[in-house]
Amino acid sequence: MSVTMEKIVSLCKRRGFIFQSSEIYGGINACYDYGPLGVELKKNIKEIWWRSMVYERDDIVGLDAAILMHPRVWEASGHVAGFTDPLVDCRICKQRFREDEIPPAKWEKRQCPHCGNVGSLTDARQFNLMFKTHMGPIEEDASVVYLRPETAQGIYVNFKNVIDSSRKKIPFGIAQIGKAFRNEITPGNFTFRTREFEQAEMQFFVKPGHDEAKFEMWQKIRMDWYRRIGIRENKMRFRPHGSGELAHYAKAAMDIEYEYPIGWKELEGIHNRTDYDLTRHQEYSGKDLSYFDDASRERFVPYIIETSAGIDRTVLTCLIDGYEEEKLDNETRIVLHLDPKIAPIKTAVFPLVNRDGMPELAHQIAKELMGDFNVFYDDSGAVGRRYRRQDEAGTPYCITIDSQTLQDQTVTIRDRDSMKQDRVPIHGISVELKNRIQGKN
Amino acid sequence: MSVTMEKIVSLCKRRGFIFQSSEIYGGINACYDYGPLGVELKKNIKEIWWRSMVYERDDIVGLDAAILMHPRVWEASGHVAGFTDPLVDCRICKQRFREDEIPPAKWEKRQCPHCGNVGSLTDARQFNLMFKTHMGPIEEDASVVYLRPETAQGIYVNFKNVIDSSRKKIPFGIAQIGKAFRNEITPGNFTFRTREFEQAEMQFFVKPGHDEAKFEMWQKIRMDWYRRIGIRENKMRFRPHGSGELAHYAKAAMDIEYEYPIGWKELEGIHNRTDYDLTRHQEYSGKDLSYFDDASRERFVPYIIETSAGIDRTVLTCLIDGYEEEKLDNETRIVLHLDPKIAPIKTAVFPLVNRDGMPELAHQIAKELMGDFNVFYDDSGAVGRRYRRQDEAGTPYCITIDSQTLQDQTVTIRDRDSMKQDRVPIHGISVELKNRIQGKN
Repeated sequence: MSVTMEKIVSLCKRRGFIFQSSEIYGGINACYDYGPLGVELKKNIKEIWWRSMVYERDDIVGLDAAILMHPRVWEASGHVAGFTDPLVDCRICKQRFREDEIPPAKWEKRQCPHCGNVGSLTDARQFNLMFKTHMGPIEEDASVVYLRPETAQGIYVNFKNVIDSSRKKIPFGIAQIGKAFRNEITPGNFTFRTREFEQAEMQFFVKPGHDEAKFEMWQKIRMDWYRRIGIRENKMRFRPHGSGELAHYAKAAMDIEYEYPIGWKELEGIHNRTDYDLTRHQEYSGKDLSYFDDASRERFVPYIIETSAGIDRTVLTCLIDGYEEEKLDNETRIVLHLDPKIAPIKTAVFPLVNRDGMPELAHQIAKELMGDFNVFYDDSGAVGRRYRRQDEAGTPYCITIDSQTLQDQTVTIRDRDSMKQDRVPIHGISVELKNRIQGKN
Repeated sequence: MSVTMEKIVSLCKRRGFIFQSSEIYGGINACYDYGPLGVELKKNIKEIWWRSMVYERDDIVGLDAAILMHPRVWEASGHVAGFTDPLVDCRICKQRFREDEIPPAKWEKRQCPHCGNVGSLTDARQFNLMFKTHMGPIEEDASVVYLRPETAQGIYVNFKNVIDSSRKKIPFGIAQIGKAFRNEITPGNFTFRTREFEQAEMQFFVKPGHDEAKFEMWQKIRMDWYRRIGIRENKMRFRPHGSGELAHYAKAAMDIEYEYPIGWKELEGIHNRTDYDLTRHQEYSGKDLSYFDDASRERFVPYIIETSAGIDRTVLTCLIDGYEEEKLDNETRIVLHLDPKIAPIKTAVFPLVNRDGMPELAHQIAKELMGDFNVFYDDSGAVGRRYRRQDEAGTPYCITIDSQTLQDQTVTIRDRDSMKQDRVPIHGISVELKNRIQGKN
């Protein structure tokens, strides 16, 4: 049975991955809350991204810029003038559309795709997607600030500060994870396109002329990263942007796409932004953002290669990619084949039955593992049902304490994917789990 | 020499801990960006908080709710009606004040504390501190949403969803780290009070009658946590709120205070919020938020014990608490005595000189350690200067490769605080560092 968005939404709510925000008040459109399992999955993905970008490399440093920035930033970036979508209303049914999402044949006749009335659609108006608020007590034009629609600008405006304080030399990058906000006209498909979302962006500063090689390099590194977190190779592909769809700042753009239940869609974008960003901020701020290269004795405005991932979309992709309804002899089990490295719970510990000292021993083992792993203890219901609950949560290993444990101090480790059980001595569990999570077994 | 806020601000900018947001545009008031060192310090503090709250306990789960919530949430919580500060303007110099911050003698005469004019102050107007924006394309009352002024409400409105999906039983808690926003009239003192900030809040749900014991328990746990991240004991104290200063929802409140350069101020608040929050949300949402206790066969609306910490303020406290200008024989060294667990860089690796194969070996050692620690490589300038640079960054251990290394495969490990150097074999560095960071040596 193939995975659908509805099945993912249902699993997410049932097991506490993702809830609709403010659900008890009827929800708020296109905002979502991460529950106990979701927050761990998201946290693990962010941690692996940060580790691969910052800790395992010596040419990238981290940054965490504020969401509220000076409004001139968004004039320089081009967002105030150009970050708009063409908004169309139906005068009859009051439904709202993005002009570019209306089929051309209907748009020609101004025929509403929702109620079907001909001639009912308004002309398209340009609607700016930035959320606007006011800083300070007076709501006047001078106090307008925006919620950032992307994290990238926080990196650009800090370029000089980072160079001066970290003494990094080009080529080097700045990595950042943080929230961004877009007042989308037509958000949807669960957490695929939301109004509040988290980005993981890295901006790599290079010497002009070296940009094309680094653009290639980062495509490969980023595709490898998705493999590293367990996304299936055959569900991903590269898609270069044609010259007609390139953003105004981009010399080249490559999407990494994933085959979602709604079709092939962008998972990540890698962009050659040229010197557009730093040149614009130089112009608007009046500050010199050029770089002096000691080696070549040249001064230049760096080119930027950007890798831009959405954390919420990556979480959703991992859930979709891992979801399986597996037919067994007498039942269908729902299992989430998450890579052990990103699984919210690494191991669940069960006493087979609640007597003969098994619960006490199970508690003790769970407690000892807690220092190293996120552990879940469960003693309610038949053990088969407990396995199924962990299959759905994506827990890769279940440890069961049974009557043999009391005699020979061994427990079973049960593998989520193969359902195979191995006996291992209690004192060796922690190392065994570590090896399995890191993929050494 | 005693630490001042100015010295901290200067160190933060110089070394890349904290920058003013949008600095190249003149900055934006009361918003800050974390640079390469600051982001790591903040990340480490958040990770230790999460570990102590979620991973090391089996009675707390995590959550990550959206910043944008349904506007009814803030009616139920009391923020729309009551989250206000009394705002006073000076008609002459246009300065703005919070009425409660004007000395009573001056307020009586309506005398401006800034320009000194008598009778120049306006009456106080109640100003709501929530940032307001609009969701969807039309700016009308129906589309108003707020940036959350606290993370707590995201936990309350998800109480039922968390119970249903995680099967937790009371007493249990929900922990969350996330951004919140307050349109403060008079922010200030660097990152002590900002308009955008990050909270780490935990809401512990208990049976009515059990609240006072848990309120005591959490005071102790939270004070212990600040010791764990290395804050000096004698700089902290408890301060109970008097009945006159209790918030409307609180039965009791206890601050953990720290002695800042600006005096004793709140570092964290622990509150007995009673059943106020869930009762209000029950009323406003029409949803049943009571809990059925299997053990006692009783149904009740849980009481809530809240622990509320500010991550930015904790980062600032660690910087202040660790800062020392130490007089040595011939110089003064600036050193940040950060606990090794929270230090941004765990170890710096230096070749003593840039010849005889030392840089190559140093690079190799740095690369090997990178999998386990955040490592910094530095080969520029005299080694004494390199030590000083790491002292200022709070790096607890420096590893130097010298000519003896080439002969006997040992390196020196130099301790930041004692400046003492020990020789250890290369193959033992990783374990040695781990033990020292965990405080086992």
